[in-house]
Amino acid sequence: MSVAVVGAGPGDPGLITVRGLELVRAAEILVYDRLVAHELVLEARGAALIERDGLTQDEVNELLVRHGRRGRSVVRLKGGDPFVFGRGAEEVAALEDAGVPVELVPGLSTLTALPALAGIPLTARGIAAEVTAITGTTADGADLDYDRLAQLPGTIVIFMGLGRLEHIADNLILAGRPVDEPAAVISRLSHPDCEVHRGTLATIASAARTAATPALVVIGDVVSRGARLPEPML
Amino acid sequence: MSVAVVGAGPGDPGLITVRGLELVRAAEILVYDRLVAHELVLEARGAALIERDGLTQDEVNELLVRHGRRGRSVVRLKGGDPFVFGRGAEEVAALEDAGVPVELVPGLSTLTALPALAGIPLTARGIAAEVTAITGTTADGADLDYDRLAQLPGTIVIFMGLGRLEHIADNLILAGRPVDEPAAVISRLSHPDCEVHRGTLATIASAARTAATPALVVIGDVVSRGARLPEPML
Repeated sequence: MSVAVVGAGPGDPGLITVRGLELVRAAEILVYDRLVAHELVLEARGAALIERDGLTQDEVNELLVRHGRRGRSVVRLKGGDPFVFGRGAEEVAALEDAGVPVELVPGLSTLTALPALAGIPLTARGIAAEVTAITGTTADGADLDYDRLAQLPGTIVIFMGLGRLEHIADNLILAGRPVDEPAAVISRLSHPDCEVHRGTLATIASAARTAATPALVVIGDVVSRGARLPEPML
Repeated sequence: MSVAVVGAGPGDPGLITVRGLELVRAAEILVYDRLVAHELVLEARGAALIERDGLTQDEVNELLVRHGRRGRSVVRLKGGDPFVFGRGAEEVAALEDAGVPVELVPGLSTLTALPALAGIPLTARGIAAEVTAITGTTADGADLDYDRLAQLPGTIVIFMGLGRLEHIADNLILAGRPVDEPAAVISRLSHPDCEVHRGTLATIASAARTAATPALVVIGDVVSRGARLPEPML
């Protein structure tokens, strides 16, 4: 294996996988996202460090292929999980197209880990048996299909939705979702400055007005199951 | 902290989190699922080991509360992530109701990790910007709402759907999904005997006839992105 695409998890350095940390420690070249915990970057003691931000996706792909072809131990360390709204698939495809062997090490996805850390189960017996994950900001700039979203019977998780939360919540209500449906914004959770804002569809945009990005929006009755913010594990 | 609810990840012992392994190693009492990797159970060297299977959910809750109240270091080690179709919420609620402090350590969810390990991204630019996760076998025995599922624009992930896959795939086609929509069954992935079966909605039930449980069904164009089965990391 010469290039490993590794998920770092949601922020807390203790939430990377055992295998992921092993690869980071053995890396000769570490290409990392700015949002990855600094403690994890420091674990790559002997490695050349390359911050991904500032590079285009094509430049990142080219970098991974070039060093991978030379047989170097390259680790591409991404926040969360690389394969859920993470563009990891594009990097893996570039490596495979170039014939460079890849090891995939998933990370704790923001989708599942942030609600869990906020005490909000994505599913719960008798409350929600379905989960839908979407992005609040689409690649083509089109708005969401609120009529269809209003019919979803389970939990809705919105990535990159904080900036448009008032618009999204208003339109979900107009399309038929209850004004008092529980909603939460989980902001920088598992970082030391984490925050969970709670409310209803009618109040959440106002309740989360001061929330920092990146943030995850969770809508559904499961939100009222969670009441407690765990201590950050740093 | 006296009781930790820890996700073990999808099977490979290297895919537990660093914090999860630390808690397992320090446990005085380990309550574990049968599906958790044996290597992880062996990491709890000094602990009393209790296999969960054979106990009712009420008995498990009562066990965790009783030992937690005594201040013992109890680790409840569950397969995958405890909070996605995992009933972890019920155990946490029982502990909180009893006033026992809980630490939550999410695991790599089957939902995100198994597709990633099979090389199937749940989302990919221009292919799928939405993911819906459901169970193929509902708690109340009711059938799925195929007309609604047929309208979903993104990837569909089905937990516990292998036993009814022919029925589910047939009904999705009848409700309007294309017969040639790519589909995969990921069976025991990240275990040494992992298998990925691929096909279309029309062929997947037959292609996965010999697949072992537990298995995850993935339906959507992202499936044709994944072509490679990585080596198990054991």
